[in-house]
Amino acid sequence: MSDPCLPECGVARFLALLNGPWATLIVRELLHGPLRFNELRQLLPGISPHTLTSRLRQFERHGIVTRTTYAEIPPRVVYELTPLGEGLRDVLEAMGAWAMAVPDPGAEVTA
Amino acid sequence: MSDPCLPECGVARFLALLNGPWATLIVRELLHGPLRFNELRQLLPGISPHTLTSRLRQFERHGIVTRTTYAEIPPRVVYELTPLGEGLRDVLEAMGAWAMAVPDPGAEVTA
Repeated sequence: MSDPCLPECGVARFLALLNGPWATLIVRELLHGPLRFNELRQLLPGISPHTLTSRLRQFERHGIVTRTTYAEIPPRVVYELTPLGEGLRDVLEAMGAWAMAVPDPGAEVTA
Repeated sequence: MSDPCLPECGVARFLALLNGPWATLIVRELLHGPLRFNELRQLLPGISPHTLTSRLRQFERHGIVTRTTYAEIPPRVVYELTPLGEGLRDVLEAMGAWAMAVPDPGAEVTA
């Protein structure tokens, strides 16, 4: 549940910080700009509120995301990447560029 | 189980190709050079033979890893990254570089 100590190895540390596919997809959405909780939910069909809350809290704890509450009625809560979180842009771009070079075996067969 | 069609989005496609933490850690080990099944098991304490087999087959299917059998007694089977798989070096380096810049909150507290 918690992550008392991050791994020494950079790759393992990355996997501990962005654990599970949803974490990376949340970052992908936030790279477009700040978002509210329900906006994130709508952009990520299938994510449970529990998972989204858990990942956002983990991101806050590690300084990847800030959570800002605006004293409006009703109150507005906005999640935004910090400069540290913005640093993930290069990583996600590298992921995407590599993955798009992988041929899709499923696209060739008609099964 | 299977992956008949890969996602159109690069990041989601990456997460489908390298699903779960073990997939990325297997690649991390293979970036050092070709390895046998049992060598990979020893380098990745906690991985189940089922998961390792499943990930390696998935990598073979997508052209990320080759599986070569040497007709020795006993037969020797070696897994090696293809040039496509080698392309993951940049991605894993970007992951590691970013992750090592994240402060470890657990390292500060004595709980």
